[in-house]
Amino acid sequence: MPLIVQKYGGTSVANPERIANVANRVVKGWREGHRMVVVLSAMAGETDRLIGLAREVAEEPDARELDVLMATGEQVTVALFSMFLKSQGIPATSLLSHQARIYTNRAYGRARIIGIDTARILEELKKNRIVIVAGFQGVDEVGNITTLGRGGSDTTAVAIAAALKADLCEIYTDVEGVYTADPRICPRSRKLSRISYDEMLELASLGAKVLEIRSVGFAKRYNVPLHVRSSFTERPGTLVTKEDKDMEDILVSGVTYSKNDARVTITRVPDVPGIAAKIFNPMVEANIVVDMIIQNTSIEGLTDLTFTVPKGDLKKTLELIQPVAREIGADKLLSDEHIAKVSIVGVGMRNNAGVASRMFSTLAAQNINILTISTSEIKISCVIEDKYTELAVRELHDAFGLEHVRPRNRLN
Amino acid sequence: MPLIVQKYGGTSVANPERIANVANRVVKGWREGHRMVVVLSAMAGETDRLIGLAREVAEEPDARELDVLMATGEQVTVALFSMFLKSQGIPATSLLSHQARIYTNRAYGRARIIGIDTARILEELKKNRIVIVAGFQGVDEVGNITTLGRGGSDTTAVAIAAALKADLCEIYTDVEGVYTADPRICPRSRKLSRISYDEMLELASLGAKVLEIRSVGFAKRYNVPLHVRSSFTERPGTLVTKEDKDMEDILVSGVTYSKNDARVTITRVPDVPGIAAKIFNPMVEANIVVDMIIQNTSIEGLTDLTFTVPKGDLKKTLELIQPVAREIGADKLLSDEHIAKVSIVGVGMRNNAGVASRMFSTLAAQNINILTISTSEIKISCVIEDKYTELAVRELHDAFGLEHVRPRNRLN
Repeated sequence: MPLIVQKYGGTSVANPERIANVANRVVKGWREGHRMVVVLSAMAGETDRLIGLAREVAEEPDARELDVLMATGEQVTVALFSMFLKSQGIPATSLLSHQARIYTNRAYGRARIIGIDTARILEELKKNRIVIVAGFQGVDEVGNITTLGRGGSDTTAVAIAAALKADLCEIYTDVEGVYTADPRICPRSRKLSRISYDEMLELASLGAKVLEIRSVGFAKRYNVPLHVRSSFTERPGTLVTKEDKDMEDILVSGVTYSKNDARVTITRVPDVPGIAAKIFNPMVEANIVVDMIIQNTSIEGLTDLTFTVPKGDLKKTLELIQPVAREIGADKLLSDEHIAKVSIVGVGMRNNAGVASRMFSTLAAQNINILTISTSEIKISCVIEDKYTELAVRELHDAFGLEHVRPRNRLN
Repeated sequence: MPLIVQKYGGTSVANPERIANVANRVVKGWREGHRMVVVLSAMAGETDRLIGLAREVAEEPDARELDVLMATGEQVTVALFSMFLKSQGIPATSLLSHQARIYTNRAYGRARIIGIDTARILEELKKNRIVIVAGFQGVDEVGNITTLGRGGSDTTAVAIAAALKADLCEIYTDVEGVYTADPRICPRSRKLSRISYDEMLELASLGAKVLEIRSVGFAKRYNVPLHVRSSFTERPGTLVTKEDKDMEDILVSGVTYSKNDARVTITRVPDVPGIAAKIFNPMVEANIVVDMIIQNTSIEGLTDLTFTVPKGDLKKTLELIQPVAREIGADKLLSDEHIAKVSIVGVGMRNNAGVASRMFSTLAAQNINILTISTSEIKISCVIEDKYTELAVRELHDAFGLEHVRPRNRLN
């Protein structure tokens, strides 16, 4: 029998009424003869309520105990969900992470799944039960409770789908799928019917919030087909799958943006070996993720070094860099929080020159200055002044014809 | 190092402020050099909130899933409590039932503890940590979550104390200890400084709600000294311990009452072998606990049979008995919900005649009719009309001089 893993987010299970609505969808799949595993998040709002409680007892709550607390959120949802199913005469069982045997490392609050022993899940499926698994959480090798961080339920679902070699993993959320651009700022954006893992990885890391990035990595590695769709409609969403010939016909699949970063520039840095290490090592130690790094060609042995960091880490970054800049005799330390990163993503770029130049000329035509550029095989990102973000996204969407499913921009 | 197990009820941990207050008490014991294990209930009100959620999704929530849901109550408390301790620089760790390895049978909602593997608790104690254990819950042999029923945290605490051979088990509650009678109806009642396990067992089963009865049975079986006291004062409470010579000097330790039962009478039952089985077997099968059973001396081969059952089971009982009464040719089936059971308890009764007659004459002096009597070695219970309950308790309290710590009524 085909096996389907479904994941429902917090808004889909926000109250008993929605739980009933979602449960009916699950039962439909089960009645059609599928083996069903359902992964649930905490009810919308519950996570914030629990964090609030923690803050009342401790300013900086201990990480291990915070995970014990947070894990109750999904525990409540899976219990209520299973209860509802059973009250309708449908065989079901809830499983918490220690019961579903989802093992992680001990990085509380941002744990990584290292393995799943599927014996118990398979045993329950063999009894024809719908298996309801608490998302977002795991246990380490001695049974401590861990959580996977924001969006962790996506990862739970994909990891279980991979471990069970599921036929499909459906991620239900409050949007209808993956769009060519954020519909809130780009009215002509269009839902994609298919997209490759690599494109989704780029989109997720560039700011599209529809899927948690680790879950996409997992799906790619274990070749789990993902279907991202809405729990509020019956319409199909977006299939995230491995790349095929057709996809390469599409130059650009989507335009995305992010306003999460700040830009730091150190001017007139001596261009000698070991300088970069001196600058970036303290940041690595402080767990600050440096994104784009640009070093201009050096003139007379001096160069300007520019990089971006998350806005929340800017203050810390400047504190760390200040003494280093002085020590190496740099001229100035500048920073800018009013930036945005606008990116285009598409596997078709690989075999097509001219994509980058079309992007640059599109921005230039609107007098949008490009502050920094970075590229990968399938994406080009430009840092611009943040006030131009919406304009840039709309213009790029138009320039690459993303509103049309054209021969050169066809997805299925 | 001496080992103390402390249990705090829901009102003692009802909010972050009270958690801090209780935590300071725990830390005091720890600083004095004790190894500390703390068992916590859910915050007051939380259990009702969770039951409310369950009722919203299912009229009769599935027992297994209800336990998964209810167990989050204690999980929240232990996480917050440990967080608070750690934020104060005190080493602590929370343990849920699957981590503390508290094993029960699979009777969801009323599970019995069958064993505790103390390895993990001892490991944490060896690290000088305060161990915070979620009360009320356990796991069965395959890791399903179970709960022990109302008051189950008392049982958790005593079971852990027994398994660890603790020096003392302190049960913190919102009353100051065990009283000679309920202070709300008997102003002259007095807090007992000591009481025997057997007396406490009788009091608990007769309606005194200060301790869950199973926990007292556990404590007696494993000889765990219990100290019942209030978390809101520093005053000592009541020590529940094994019987010693001094205790036998006391005729009566306490007067208690219960209004939970209803009385059923079947008149003119043929007094032939097998009749009792015919009547009571259907009730046993329906899990109805029959308390007092009185059979009058038979006259001309006919007798009246009277027994009590919990009020909540009366309707069911009558449904079950009706056809049996008809079948055996009994005359009438009568019932009465307006009864109360008033009892006196004391190990000193064993060696003293005259206690029963003093009880009967005390009630008679107030014109209180005794409907049914039952006795054990250390208690006498009389069923009376419930409107006389408070009067009876006060008069008996006076008649046995319970307000005084007299030579013949001394406790320490």
